Amino acid sequence: MNSVLAGLPTTVFEVMSRLARETGAINLGQGFPDDPGPADVRARAADAVVNGWNQYPPMLGLPELRQAVADHYQHHQGLALDAESEVMITSGATEAIAGALLALIEPGDEVVLFQPMYDAYLPLVRRAGGVPRFVTLKPPHWRLSEEALAAAFSERTKVVLFNNPLNPSAVVYGREDLELLARFCEHFDAIAICDEVWEHLVFDGRRHLPLMTLPGMRKRCVKIGSAGKIFSLTGWKVGFVSAAPDILKVLAKAHQFLTFTTPPNLQSAVAYGLAKDDAYFEGMRRDFARSRDRFTEGLRSLGLAVLPSEGTYFVNIDIAPLGEEDDVAFCKRLVAERGVAAIPVSAFYHENPVRNVVRFCFAKKDATLDGALERLAGLG
Amino acid sequence: MNSVLAGLPTTVFEVMSRLARETGAINLGQGFPDDPGPADVRARAADAVVNGWNQYPPMLGLPELRQAVADHYQHHQGLALDAESEVMITSGATEAIAGALLALIEPGDEVVLFQPMYDAYLPLVRRAGGVPRFVTLKPPHWRLSEEALAAAFSERTKVVLFNNPLNPSAVVYGREDLELLARFCEHFDAIAICDEVWEHLVFDGRRHLPLMTLPGMRKRCVKIGSAGKIFSLTGWKVGFVSAAPDILKVLAKAHQFLTFTTPPNLQSAVAYGLAKDDAYFEGMRRDFARSRDRFTEGLRSLGLAVLPSEGTYFVNIDIAPLGEEDDVAFCKRLVAERGVAAIPVSAFYHENPVRNVVRFCFAKKDATLDGALERLAGLG
Ligand SMILES: CSCCC(=O)C(=O)O
Ligand SMILES: CSCCC(=O)C(=O)O
Repeated sequence: MNSVLAGLPTTVFEVMSRLARETGAINLGQGFPDDPGPADVRARAADAVVNGWNQYPPMLGLPELRQAVADHYQHHQGLALDAESEVMITSGATEAIAGALLALIEPGDEVVLFQPMYDAYLPLVRRAGGVPRFVTLKPPHWRLSEEALAAAFSERTKVVLFNNPLNPSAVVYGREDLELLARFCEHFDAIAICDEVWEHLVFDGRRHLPLMTLPGMRKRCVKIGSAGKIFSLTGWKVGFVSAAPDILKVLAKAHQFLTFTTPPNLQSAVAYGLAKDDAYFEGMRRDFARSRDRFTEGLRSLGLAVLPSEGTYFVNIDIAPLGEEDDVAFCKRLVAERGVAAIPVSAFYHENPVRNVVRFCFAKKDATLDGALERLAGLG
Repeated sequence: MNSVLAGLPTTVFEVMSRLARETGAINLGQGFPDDPGPADVRARAADAVVNGWNQYPPMLGLPELRQAVADHYQHHQGLALDAESEVMITSGATEAIAGALLALIEPGDEVVLFQPMYDAYLPLVRRAGGVPRFVTLKPPHWRLSEEALAAAFSERTKVVLFNNPLNPSAVVYGREDLELLARFCEHFDAIAICDEVWEHLVFDGRRHLPLMTLPGMRKRCVKIGSAGKIFSLTGWKVGFVSAAPDILKVLAKAHQFLTFTTPPNLQSAVAYGLAKDDAYFEGMRRDFARSRDRFTEGLRSLGLAVLPSEGTYFVNIDIAPLGEEDDVAFCKRLVAERGVAAIPVSAFYHENPVRNVVRFCFAKKDATLDGALERLAGLG
């Protein structure tokens, strides 16, 4: 058995969702909306599975979807990509990240990771033979610093894995932080794997800035996006990878051997969805921001200390004012006594965790959020 | 960049399919049927995507599908599995194989592979840190031998990766070969990853015998199946893994980090399909056997030397009687001059390839097969 994988616990998202299912708790843990997703996109998928092609699509993805991804990024982010040589479709962003790490890391290479980090990152880096170096980010601002980067990068750094907007901290990194990171990537000749699955989920007039669009970064970034996140269809598992042709060629080898290809009916529905007009994406952001505000105000009125949420499906609270209890104990008590599932943010740290932050997913119907708030009454 | 993946060529299946698309050749290369797949199963998938749950399903798969897999194997193969602890759903058999290798191999472990082998096997074994040992199988019988196994197994053997029915040779291994293999697995305490994706595609009254059902093998087998192959929906990418609970737990970690989960609408449609009655599966086998016979007779009447096809979508010809040309040159000429794409079987060997065997996929409409035969006229 493999020593990296054999000893790992089940992901905290699955554990909390299972617990919520078993106890009937309101599940604000795992990040998924309780919206059914856009009806027209789902109707396209239904039509394609009945009337379309259900055999292997081209390994790199349906040409129409690869073109739709390129067009989408051109329109929304000013990023010019060649669909044929720079875009690949994967079975979700998780596969894209796994493939990128397996493709880019040679055993012994150093990989810079930023804590808090999505729980797949570290085991994947280790299983690929990478040696992790951590940059630790702290609430309430979670900012990068020259000092922290200088301590993590070295001549052996080959890959950086950076998530922006950042789950779970709900921060959206702007030009200043990104320029700092880009400077280190260039200086140490590292490739940045940019997990940008939350790119459309940025609020209050913010714009997502892809690391790839910074000067000098075009040729050293692997940009990863997710249709599941964009369209609130997290079960679909359709991801996109964008990278310069020489990098994409190697990523394609990993994809070839990990899943080979992705269901064509879902691909063609996503191609349709990506072409939706600005009003659609703005409306989506407005709806999510409204849910965020409703839930944030509710938490505040309970006397809880809410941290700012600039993007993602998430909002965090600082539990330090509530007493000595750490985030894991707090979340266990919350699901058992209050019937509300949340995620302890320490689960996103490998070492020196922040222990006073708890994450809630606000991507839920008003009634669900209000129900959770009712159950939380008296907590603050 | 990773040295195992960076240098690899694109898979021969993709290369030949692309060439066929570009030149308008009849594509008998890549293994997929040109049948649209069962309409009722596709209708279920359409209904579920419109009316069902499109968010993350449980990581190990929909409970209804895991139970359907267990029931299916109980009914068709007399294999008793506990759906809850012994069955997992993956994004196709490719993900299942990749995950099993990443989960079971510790760098330096020896892995026994059988040539001819599916082209993903060797890069995956190497990327997982495994040291491959080859057993070479030869036409026309492709049988295992005690001598060949003894030369490949050692005290360092940890994993065996065995495909039965075997693509591309179209042989179905029965009790005698499997007992020999089981004996070696037990003696060297190895786990067998059993790629049994062709389990339903066995002809002439044969029954597929899962290696897992042999005495002593229940606890040391990882059995992999594929809905895409069973239902002629190769683009769906829904696979199943069956293994004893202690093994499945580790495989689940790999799955968690490779794709996390698989589209729920396709999962529920497959659950429905697996419960179809015996007449359905018998009818399917009969239809494929009829296509095989039609194409085989056609090839024979052209004077070509056809090797027996006991299972899979494939039939091979021996090109030695045609002259000195090797299989790769032959296939290149076939697509360019005759407009028919086929697969050179040497692509399935790492060393000492057989060079006189060419594979055709017969899982096509009569008109397609007849059209190909017409284009091949005069070849024999
Ligand atoms: C793949 S389950 C986790 C979903 C998610 O992004 C989150 O909850 O952080
Ligand atoms: C994943 S493409 C290859 C399909 C197949 O099984 C084959 O052609 O051998």
